[in-house]
Amino acid sequence: MALQFISAKEAAALVKNDDNVGFSGFTHAGCPKVVPVEIAKRAEAEHAKGNPFKIGVFTGASTGDSIDGALTRAKAIKFRTPYQTNKDTREALNRNEFDFFDLHLSQLAQEIRYGFFGKINVAIVEACEVTEKGEVVPTTAVGITPTICRLADIVIVELNKKVPAKLRGIHDIYELQDPPKRREIPIYEIQNRIGLDYVKVDPKKIFVVETEKDGEGGGFAPVDEVTARIGENVANFFVSEINAKRIPAHFLPIQSGVGNIANAVLAAMGSNPDIPRFEVYTEVIQDAVIDMMQKGNISFASGCSLTVSNEVLHQFYNDLDFFKNKLVLRPSEISNNPGLARRLGIIALNTAIEVDIFGNVNSTHVNGTKMMNGIGGSGDFTRNSYLSVFLTPSTAKKGAISCIVPKVTHEDHNEHSVKIVVSEYGVADLRGKGPRKRAEEIIEKCAHPDYRPLLHEYLNRGVNGHLPQDIYACFAFHHTLRETGSMLNTDFSKYQIG
Amino acid sequence: MALQFISAKEAAALVKNDDNVGFSGFTHAGCPKVVPVEIAKRAEAEHAKGNPFKIGVFTGASTGDSIDGALTRAKAIKFRTPYQTNKDTREALNRNEFDFFDLHLSQLAQEIRYGFFGKINVAIVEACEVTEKGEVVPTTAVGITPTICRLADIVIVELNKKVPAKLRGIHDIYELQDPPKRREIPIYEIQNRIGLDYVKVDPKKIFVVETEKDGEGGGFAPVDEVTARIGENVANFFVSEINAKRIPAHFLPIQSGVGNIANAVLAAMGSNPDIPRFEVYTEVIQDAVIDMMQKGNISFASGCSLTVSNEVLHQFYNDLDFFKNKLVLRPSEISNNPGLARRLGIIALNTAIEVDIFGNVNSTHVNGTKMMNGIGGSGDFTRNSYLSVFLTPSTAKKGAISCIVPKVTHEDHNEHSVKIVVSEYGVADLRGKGPRKRAEEIIEKCAHPDYRPLLHEYLNRGVNGHLPQDIYACFAFHHTLRETGSMLNTDFSKYQIG
Repeated sequence: MALQFISAKEAAALVKNDDNVGFSGFTHAGCPKVVPVEIAKRAEAEHAKGNPFKIGVFTGASTGDSIDGALTRAKAIKFRTPYQTNKDTREALNRNEFDFFDLHLSQLAQEIRYGFFGKINVAIVEACEVTEKGEVVPTTAVGITPTICRLADIVIVELNKKVPAKLRGIHDIYELQDPPKRREIPIYEIQNRIGLDYVKVDPKKIFVVETEKDGEGGGFAPVDEVTARIGENVANFFVSEINAKRIPAHFLPIQSGVGNIANAVLAAMGSNPDIPRFEVYTEVIQDAVIDMMQKGNISFASGCSLTVSNEVLHQFYNDLDFFKNKLVLRPSEISNNPGLARRLGIIALNTAIEVDIFGNVNSTHVNGTKMMNGIGGSGDFTRNSYLSVFLTPSTAKKGAISCIVPKVTHEDHNEHSVKIVVSEYGVADLRGKGPRKRAEEIIEKCAHPDYRPLLHEYLNRGVNGHLPQDIYACFAFHHTLRETGSMLNTDFSKYQIG
Repeated sequence: MALQFISAKEAAALVKNDDNVGFSGFTHAGCPKVVPVEIAKRAEAEHAKGNPFKIGVFTGASTGDSIDGALTRAKAIKFRTPYQTNKDTREALNRNEFDFFDLHLSQLAQEIRYGFFGKINVAIVEACEVTEKGEVVPTTAVGITPTICRLADIVIVELNKKVPAKLRGIHDIYELQDPPKRREIPIYEIQNRIGLDYVKVDPKKIFVVETEKDGEGGGFAPVDEVTARIGENVANFFVSEINAKRIPAHFLPIQSGVGNIANAVLAAMGSNPDIPRFEVYTEVIQDAVIDMMQKGNISFASGCSLTVSNEVLHQFYNDLDFFKNKLVLRPSEISNNPGLARRLGIIALNTAIEVDIFGNVNSTHVNGTKMMNGIGGSGDFTRNSYLSVFLTPSTAKKGAISCIVPKVTHEDHNEHSVKIVVSEYGVADLRGKGPRKRAEEIIEKCAHPDYRPLLHEYLNRGVNGHLPQDIYACFAFHHTLRETGSMLNTDFSKYQIG
């Protein structure tokens, strides 16, 4: 049958108030860009008429401003999951304008299938090709696209003419069966392909909107002295682990989080002659990975999205023949799958907002209250990795904040899962150490020297028990920051000893 | 070659000061019982002579008193991992007499292989059969036995004549390859067998000690009114989930933690006519499971240990023909494997020390300082389950302690992994709810009515942000308990608002 072509405005009219809408993409990569903006306009028009209009927003991870930003500003969101990085969305959810549900990214597709979040009414997905048989080829990310396309009653495809149709072949689309009929995922080497190069959709429910929108990718801040030293510390640590035979000589696949520190670490690994050429099994493939593939430092990359600056994206499209057999994009339940992370033995590199002296990590909430982005895939990878590494500068806000604290104000990764902590000062190895030894290690290796005496003072307040946490003084750093503007002014003598 | 038979005292003499020693067993089940006692005696004799004598103790989980109790009392432990339940051991580690390292039980075998804890010098394992070819048949648990037997220089086998040799066939022994060569674990239905019925050991390194020791299993406290109501709430919740089609009609495999509440839940499930006959995929198979297999409520059980009272153990040995094709014992890296938990879609039932209103769970540390037992397998199962359930009475110590608190003092499972909380008052369903909605749900459904006003007062203190945690007042319940003997006396007006 012939595909039905409609305008973005007509597409937006297919979405009803209170619908649950699933969007393609993972980060800004692969997201639809025109229909959500039309939905936002429609919401504003309905609100102006006094009518309710809000939708549930389900995505792979964060999105571009065309989804989270536009819908937030239009007050068109009733519920949002699983992750966001948009300034307006962040402010709105911290004002509790809508409910935000933060979960491990690998779990969203299956929990939608299990029926835990109700029905998905509409899927809106970006594609570089769509056929009359219902073969929908995603653009630069996969996320939860296979699941929402199968479950939704209506699938709106934004066919983006700016994305070359010859991207087809870079995706590996595979949706898991649900228990009790689930089988193994047959990936044993990260380059294994197990699925189709398109998402199969019932063509009767497809509506196509043609677009010509460029990517929404900005650049990263350049590597500074602190991030460069973190990168060198990680690279040197890996070399010493290879020498000690605790990491195989041919190395293991790397998962690296998003952002400047991750880019600095990859760069340091690439320039260290004692680290062999390696592979990446991760969720977000960033600029540094593309650069290192071209230089030959990285032999293969498997991810959920290609989240690069527009400059790198255009290079990538130009060199598609080079990349096509070296890079694969998978659904988030595969890229982030706990069983695969464990089977493949990935080395997980993620950043922290703050780390405490006992090895617990806050990845999400500033001061334990204000949501930053969400846990993302850090839990999927950390818990199941061969070796988990958390990266943090020792301080923030010109030293007023120590990123090493007595107790984290929100716990996303706990002592049971965190093995290595790295700051610009050094590498704390927590493996096989009880809480008091972990604390000594983190203070001496990672904390800023200005904060070490305060952290030792906290540790040695005389609290009994296996883990000398003081339930009166554990947040003294955070109280003092709030009251004086710097954690350095902390006075533990004000606190009762717990 | 002929096996070498020696006395327990001669075996103990093979262990050197500072050795790392791996023991078979998982809970008291399957542990060696005479050689560790001789090692303890030897340590005391060496200490009396002024010589050092301490060993590293690696086990599947907790052990019987013959290992943890005897070695602790002899001050013969330098390092202990991964879990314990012995009164003397608990007190000693909380006095920091030795370093205790608490990790997810599924991870220990592989991290020993990865070299994260140094060399295992000696393995001491209980068996019901040992052959000249080096076929060692474990008794009632597997734990880390395959790995320690392969890696140790010396393997001391306690051949226990009280355990029938015809137990052979109940174990499924399979050790994973390490990355990058690891393959899938080919278990798709819980009754699948994938390995050998014995542990293969180089016979040259085997020394056999013959013993005749009964099991060390005590009974459980009878089901009381509170645990019975928790059980009923769980069973009724499962029925409503089946009716809502969020759990498949034929149900999914159950993992249940250890203890009275777990036994009460299984009993309630067994007596509910709307719950179909089900399977158990768990770490510890307890009395209630054996009873329900005999009654036909449970069709198959896969676990790491048969941890039953001696009375049930003797029944089990007598009815071995009945149980042999309905029960399998596996190594802990298989019984607790995250990838398998997710593939099989297990429903995880674990108990909490305390739960906070935002859905975080403390499983390990009383007051955040005193180690109770350890995290055990609760993290392996919870994070990777189809549905995770935490069970707790609403209060402890006759109401002086609320088990629902503003903030848990130690976090072992966080909001990202905890889906359902059950107390004797009801069932809180946290799926798809942001922090404020989760808090309302937990307070109204699970907290004791006496504590609900205080918990609402905390929640509504006016803290801004996504998650209204107050860094001044979050431990007010625990402060008040310490200062007045009851959390009910909490006065939030004393605290600054954070």
